[in-house]
Amino acid sequence: MIDPVSPAIALSGTRFLVTYLVASAAQEIEARVRSIALEQTVEFPEDLLPEGYLREQMPGQIEALEPDDEGWFRAVLSYPDEAAGSDLLQFLNVVFGNTSLQPGVRVLDFSLPQSLSRGPRFGVKGVRKVLGIPVRPLASTALKPLGLPVSELALQAYQTALGGIDVIKDDHGLANQALAPFEKRVERCVEAVAAANRETGLASVYAPNITADAETALARAKFAQAAGAGAVLVSPGLAGFGVVRALADADNFRLPIVAHPAFTGSFVSAGPGGIDPALFYGTLMRAAGADVSIFPNYGGRFSFSKQTCLAIAERCLEARAGLLPSFPSPGGGMGLERVTELKQTYGNDFVALVGGGLHREGKTLVEGSRRFVAALAQGAC
Amino acid sequence: MIDPVSPAIALSGTRFLVTYLVASAAQEIEARVRSIALEQTVEFPEDLLPEGYLREQMPGQIEALEPDDEGWFRAVLSYPDEAAGSDLLQFLNVVFGNTSLQPGVRVLDFSLPQSLSRGPRFGVKGVRKVLGIPVRPLASTALKPLGLPVSELALQAYQTALGGIDVIKDDHGLANQALAPFEKRVERCVEAVAAANRETGLASVYAPNITADAETALARAKFAQAAGAGAVLVSPGLAGFGVVRALADADNFRLPIVAHPAFTGSFVSAGPGGIDPALFYGTLMRAAGADVSIFPNYGGRFSFSKQTCLAIAERCLEARAGLLPSFPSPGGGMGLERVTELKQTYGNDFVALVGGGLHREGKTLVEGSRRFVAALAQGAC
Repeated sequence: MIDPVSPAIALSGTRFLVTYLVASAAQEIEARVRSIALEQTVEFPEDLLPEGYLREQMPGQIEALEPDDEGWFRAVLSYPDEAAGSDLLQFLNVVFGNTSLQPGVRVLDFSLPQSLSRGPRFGVKGVRKVLGIPVRPLASTALKPLGLPVSELALQAYQTALGGIDVIKDDHGLANQALAPFEKRVERCVEAVAAANRETGLASVYAPNITADAETALARAKFAQAAGAGAVLVSPGLAGFGVVRALADADNFRLPIVAHPAFTGSFVSAGPGGIDPALFYGTLMRAAGADVSIFPNYGGRFSFSKQTCLAIAERCLEARAGLLPSFPSPGGGMGLERVTELKQTYGNDFVALVGGGLHREGKTLVEGSRRFVAALAQGAC
Repeated sequence: MIDPVSPAIALSGTRFLVTYLVASAAQEIEARVRSIALEQTVEFPEDLLPEGYLREQMPGQIEALEPDDEGWFRAVLSYPDEAAGSDLLQFLNVVFGNTSLQPGVRVLDFSLPQSLSRGPRFGVKGVRKVLGIPVRPLASTALKPLGLPVSELALQAYQTALGGIDVIKDDHGLANQALAPFEKRVERCVEAVAAANRETGLASVYAPNITADAETALARAKFAQAAGAGAVLVSPGLAGFGVVRALADADNFRLPIVAHPAFTGSFVSAGPGGIDPALFYGTLMRAAGADVSIFPNYGGRFSFSKQTCLAIAERCLEARAGLLPSFPSPGGGMGLERVTELKQTYGNDFVALVGGGLHREGKTLVEGSRRFVAALAQGAC
């Protein structure tokens, strides 16, 4: 009952690829994968599609299909670039919009449409240049706990910058609560880090948390930049990946972006289903425009294996056409005793994140911070 | 190493509740729940917290803890309203930010901080008033497939409105692709529905999909309103829940909001973990400000049980202080043959969504639409 549309319409033929792991009995797998191909594009009964590009080009196409572990198959589907347009969220919608609601489908990999083949603005080299740290792993910490007033948070910012920590970020729970309102916090912490930088000669940056609803997040990012912040922190699981991409693309905003994984755990732990953690915290965060991607390190308060963490780091750093490499940033419940091991695991190109644990090191936060940076620098330059 | 902060600071004492299902051995459950209470608030070693409100009031507190199924416990934690402030995203961050990254924690229920105790702007009664349909279940359909040019989508909008369908929404895959650009599509589909309304005397509405990055989503919503659209569609899993709340709160935007579940499946299928589907598609969508919450109906292309779907509908409609009831909208792979059963299941207060299946009913889309509405109206008024 769809009228035939203009036969003159044809798509470019340029397609992006998505690799899925699909649970299915062998005799049903082809129908199952074909249903994904339709669900993620035309979402329409195939027999009712008119002849032409709507039937031939618009639906997903099966490019490869092979058995994986028992009861699972690995399917590579291609989708027309035109289905995503130049919109990251619509790209994610094609990759896993409705299919996320069907059990037994896991996204393992994707390539990007041409119009979205750009990553972070700074990347590893750019962030190193901003900070003036050419070789060693970067040191990062979080201002916390939630509930401290601005004066105390600013004091921590000063102390950790004086100790030489490169990236001093808000705890991801600092939003715009009355005890430490966003604008006042940003102004004071920027001042504090600048004061410390004048003493140290370093270029440490403060990264305030701009996570908020749409307009507010962008307004906060611009406020932070105007106030002199050196980076921003955002949780794409809460604010949406579109906020990250918008900031990374904006003409009037030019700061590195640190992505926090809050509220995203279900994407990678959905079983069976969800999204591969290396794809999620590596490739997707990078494609959204994050210069640094925080994820839960193995052996901390969270549950990722060392293998998963290494895979995330690899996806941050591997060559991808059009995308600068991003910094993996393992964190969560770590202290300085693990720095040597982290360097062995991740090499030099990572951002070590030690939060609350830093308050246990040394007699003062300044001393703890110095030890942290020294441990990262040892043997690295 | 945190200096004692001003003893004059004290929180209001007003707290919100979150109920978690937690996997744990019995001898470890109390420590496990205490670690969640810290993780979701101060995220700081407890022994390093200074005396006073930071130790006494800021962390989560265990309000109830009892065994559930074997190996699982049901824990009710309270958090200070001040931890969330008046920010929906920060509220979600406290509920499940970092804890989403730990396996074996599932969110079953929450109450809202006072500053967030407001739901949709219209709710069930308000949407019924807009549409002029006092009693029967509402009829909804989607313009599709993705790939159709604007002229064809507008023709479908006209035909389905002529057939009396109440809410005619974009397919959630229609964004701003070149084949059917947003602004042109909205203008033409608004005209088409208005033309049909002049013939029928009805008040059918067109709900364009505004899902996009932050600024763009809000700009599209306002464009849609100015062009005469009667509602908007948004996918909070892609655009973020903050976009929904911002629209539901805005002074210069006043249209009902229909929420689509794209990209959210992992939240409810994460096992063990995630968020209860009734809480997610019922309470959370409603708290975000959605007047209508679409979810995958049982027995369609998706996997929810009838029990889960009924629980979602109940959460949309149950009494909650400060929140108007919202419309549950079961959809996904349904045809008219199921309308009688849907009415038996959901009663009158739901929005039946039949998409591609409508093209199989009757000789024309107008006739199929009329049959759909007639089936919903039968015995209802």
